[in-house]
Amino acid sequence: MQRWKLTVEYDGRPFVGWQRQDNGPSVQQSLEEALQRLSGETVRVHASGRTDAGVHALGQVVHFDLEKPFAGLKLRDALNHHLKPAPVAVLLAEEVPDDFHARLSCLGRSYVFRIVNRRAPLALDAGRAWHVQRPLDAEAMNLAARHLIGQHDFTSFRAALCQAKSPVKTLDRLEVERQGDELRIHAAARSFLHHQVRNMVGTLELVGAGKWQPDDVRRALEARDRAKAGPTAPPDGLYFVSARY
Amino acid sequence: MQRWKLTVEYDGRPFVGWQRQDNGPSVQQSLEEALQRLSGETVRVHASGRTDAGVHALGQVVHFDLEKPFAGLKLRDALNHHLKPAPVAVLLAEEVPDDFHARLSCLGRSYVFRIVNRRAPLALDAGRAWHVQRPLDAEAMNLAARHLIGQHDFTSFRAALCQAKSPVKTLDRLEVERQGDELRIHAAARSFLHHQVRNMVGTLELVGAGKWQPDDVRRALEARDRAKAGPTAPPDGLYFVSARY
Repeated sequence: MQRWKLTVEYDGRPFVGWQRQDNGPSVQQSLEEALQRLSGETVRVHASGRTDAGVHALGQVVHFDLEKPFAGLKLRDALNHHLKPAPVAVLLAEEVPDDFHARLSCLGRSYVFRIVNRRAPLALDAGRAWHVQRPLDAEAMNLAARHLIGQHDFTSFRAALCQAKSPVKTLDRLEVERQGDELRIHAAARSFLHHQVRNMVGTLELVGAGKWQPDDVRRALEARDRAKAGPTAPPDGLYFVSARY
Repeated sequence: MQRWKLTVEYDGRPFVGWQRQDNGPSVQQSLEEALQRLSGETVRVHASGRTDAGVHALGQVVHFDLEKPFAGLKLRDALNHHLKPAPVAVLLAEEVPDDFHARLSCLGRSYVFRIVNRRAPLALDAGRAWHVQRPLDAEAMNLAARHLIGQHDFTSFRAALCQAKSPVKTLDRLEVERQGDELRIHAAARSFLHHQVRNMVGTLELVGAGKWQPDDVRRALEARDRAKAGPTAPPDGLYFVSARY
């Protein structure tokens, strides 16, 4: 038996999310079925982080075990062949030791959230960025973001369905940069609560629009009450960038 | 009567190209039908540059005349409403003098061509970049590109169907930059021959792959023979960036 680590890119739009569900196709199912077709084995694939419906990945990391031996390059190319036409691409396939676990061994995860900030609708980025029409002040969003960096109880930014044991997380990076019409919000942490990035982005958007002051974000954090923070940003703009081991 | 200038973004994938044709939907048709629905007038729209099937635009410029008066912002927003669900977005609508002509008044056009250079297929960029699997040397491509800059007879890079009177054009910029897995080829000129950018990119790719030396591009140019240059790159990677007046 060989344990494998894959680095995977996907377009989240056609999927109900990373995880297998009864109501539609998932990225997990695409990968597991491609592995089944390739190897004849029934394989369970574990991801570094589950992504919600509509959330994309530039470098999701997954692991699984195969009985059949493969060479790394061959496994990658053959899997990509069997994944068609699902918008899922294996960028890298690496042999790893048996104790490697995509989720449990992960030391850090990073996301980027794209906002296209303009009046006109998105012709090229529909489903791949959050379209915000009202003008956003990226500098104010950046000031607000600083209140969230560090170790905090993130209850105010946690989905009701979140299964994490503790709401305390350490946010290593939350940074807003503007490039023309586009805002990119970079977030990094060892791990995140369910919807944490989208809830932080939805809150920062209120600051960008001038509805909130940067300091209001600190107060929302300290309230430890989901109702005190901003709305959940749509999944369209969220990309799982990388996992660190 | 008022003459209008629009700046337009579109995703080229569902279209047979800019120009109206019998075999499928065009960007021109989408705009003309949206204008008809909005104003009740039968409007003919002229573009700065016709794009082929599958070619995208970040900032195509078009003009047309309307009898009915509109305010600029209102025209843009209303047109975007009537364009749905076509992936065409009006970024800007401006009133211009009667002698403005999107094609004839244009002083410069710029394109970017995106290549994703990696083994794995494109999950997020399918149809929006040229997927080249063999490794490309961007520096060699850049050296080769320099042979094409300036005023030349571009017969070797001209489509058989090209209707331009002269094959002589002045290429102001042709530059290859690599950002990770992605190569961006920037091209600018007062005007281009039909397929010129795609034919130049298809030729530079041969240099990047080491099949050609940079100097071979000079020889291909001097041959003034389409058969002596490289193949036409696919439309997927090509974006009309802007038109200058």
